[in-house]
Amino acid sequence: MESVAQQRLRESIRDIPDFPKPGIVFRDITTLLQDPDRFREALALIEERWKGEGVEVIAGIEARGFIFGAALADRLGCPFVPIRKAGKLPAETVAMSYELEYGTDSIEMHADAFREGARILIVDDLLATGGTAAAAAKLVEETGGEVVGLAFVVNLAFLPGASKLEKYRTQYLVEYDSE
Amino acid sequence: MESVAQQRLRESIRDIPDFPKPGIVFRDITTLLQDPDRFREALALIEERWKGEGVEVIAGIEARGFIFGAALADRLGCPFVPIRKAGKLPAETVAMSYELEYGTDSIEMHADAFREGARILIVDDLLATGGTAAAAAKLVEETGGEVVGLAFVVNLAFLPGASKLEKYRTQYLVEYDSE
Repeated sequence: MESVAQQRLRESIRDIPDFPKPGIVFRDITTLLQDPDRFREALALIEERWKGEGVEVIAGIEARGFIFGAALADRLGCPFVPIRKAGKLPAETVAMSYELEYGTDSIEMHADAFREGARILIVDDLLATGGTAAAAAKLVEETGGEVVGLAFVVNLAFLPGASKLEKYRTQYLVEYDSE
Repeated sequence: MESVAQQRLRESIRDIPDFPKPGIVFRDITTLLQDPDRFREALALIEERWKGEGVEVIAGIEARGFIFGAALADRLGCPFVPIRKAGKLPAETVAMSYELEYGTDSIEMHADAFREGARILIVDDLLATGGTAAAAAKLVEETGGEVVGLAFVVNLAFLPGASKLEKYRTQYLVEYDSE
């Protein structure tokens, strides 16, 4: 059951048909960001859900995960760690590859991004097939971090993303059951 | 003359020699982000500089500009508008191309990102040759926005970036006079 805050968030997200390709409905959160009350409400819901969980570091997934993750890190007074596409981070990195529909891709994090055992909340705007998110969680673990959970503004619940994150605690502010 | 806060920010930025190519010293702000006091101090300096200027919208340049821009938008209660690489934004966009060392590149913003006449602060992490930043400012103007100014955490002052932004008000938290 959606709360009033969640319904307001859903209404602030715009549907773009046929993006990035025909037949796909893109859930566009830039309209949410254009409304500061909704942006702050989304941040407050994430903050509230995780604030008693001893989160020590916010990791945001490039690029839209930076938007929510960094603002959340500022609110919580936590370090912010960017998880980026391969080749973007300048110092020593650890990488994790994941499967795409055709081929593979990989993400990276700085090897010294946090201390051993740090409690990490991973943040992104949207969960779809879950490849990137699952790789991000594995990356955090392989680097010695503990994944407290993963927070997403949107979950495309008709795709298998959530099932790839079953071993973790997750938060989805707005869920779509069909395209 | 640098303030104590600016000196602390400078010390939190890591130098990575030979990235992305030999002879370049990359100024890595991920170490600043790993220290929440420094991240918040950077945000506070930007907030303080622009808070009396009637800023109505924060525009952040992909991808690291999202980190500072979004947190600032949350602080100021402003809409956040992402300026992205070509092809990333799903709705109708306006584009602006700019010259690279070899060839050209372009950035985009949603055509309906803000109302006509809105007062925009553009935020990015680093000013180098200024191509992207000048294109972002032109993009905002062509879309009917007024550029209140541009704020950067780092200015590589030995490169011509600042000269390309002469008609705008700018803020640089940390400046490097040589590589």
